[in-house]
Amino acid sequence: MEFEESTVESELIYKGRVVSLRLDTVQLANGRTVTREIVQHRGAVAIVPLLDNSTVLLVRQYRQAVGEALLEIPAGTLEENESPETCAIRELEEETGYTAKLMQPMFSQYLAPGYSQEVLHVFLAEELSEGSARPEEDEQLELVETPVSEVAPMVLDGRIRDAKTIAGLLVTLRLLGK
Amino acid sequence: MEFEESTVESELIYKGRVVSLRLDTVQLANGRTVTREIVQHRGAVAIVPLLDNSTVLLVRQYRQAVGEALLEIPAGTLEENESPETCAIRELEEETGYTAKLMQPMFSQYLAPGYSQEVLHVFLAEELSEGSARPEEDEQLELVETPVSEVAPMVLDGRIRDAKTIAGLLVTLRLLGK
Repeated sequence: MEFEESTVESELIYKGRVVSLRLDTVQLANGRTVTREIVQHRGAVAIVPLLDNSTVLLVRQYRQAVGEALLEIPAGTLEENESPETCAIRELEEETGYTAKLMQPMFSQYLAPGYSQEVLHVFLAEELSEGSARPEEDEQLELVETPVSEVAPMVLDGRIRDAKTIAGLLVTLRLLGK
Repeated sequence: MEFEESTVESELIYKGRVVSLRLDTVQLANGRTVTREIVQHRGAVAIVPLLDNSTVLLVRQYRQAVGEALLEIPAGTLEENESPETCAIRELEEETGYTAKLMQPMFSQYLAPGYSQEVLHVFLAEELSEGSARPEEDEQLELVETPVSEVAPMVLDGRIRDAKTIAGLLVTLRLLGK
């Protein structure tokens, strides 16, 4: 089956700091022409920081987009020309103060491919050393040590409800054989 | 710790069909004022359709936002005043032709809470009966029967790279004890 959509026209509606908005007119394989609203994004990383084999470090922060504070794995947006690994090391230290001796890529995922370009690279951070957090000026974070045995129940009862966090933690549980 | 951000000003930049873009000026707990770019979205559902205890039904479709075809669980946006369960039943039938005798909510997740309002409700569909798919005019889908034993390897090697699909399938595996 042929899926490819060919872009007929592309119009930038708004250029923002984190996201920009683009309107694409595309022709489907069946000949029809439709419009797609596209959120442009530079890409991001997220880090699952294992304090030990049974404890993961999460951050709680207020998210204006959804109007509440969420429990998440540390994450951040790629800077220009920054590699995902460099970004993961930087974001973990900025948000939590921890540095990791081992920082391994686990998998990558598109967060909302129906309209958003964003790809998120997920890393597993191990052999951590504590330091001082240096959050960005518009970030306010609380560190929350969480038993890995609590992760699945917390997803099902809604205490964890961020997609990148659910995927990152459940992949980690499988890798740990838990 | 106090996280709440109070909205000082809110400006609608663009009103679209699937997403709209809003610019919020917010005051942080520390008194600073910053701007947040917010993608407005009505919310959505996704469905994990179990054909039997060892096979899940996925759909492959081209995603203009990321420029490639992705393997995903069936999903769709809530219509105005539509309940998540009604939407899940409708979307499963439209995209795959299948109807489910059992449609159970599993969990809900925010897909990209750093900038998007979108909440996605994930359902488990069981006891399926085959019928005829009726995709929307701008949707072109291919059905892909996938062994549940393949899901975790497919996430790690990149064959599955959609966040809602990774989270939905890994939660399902845990519920199935696999």
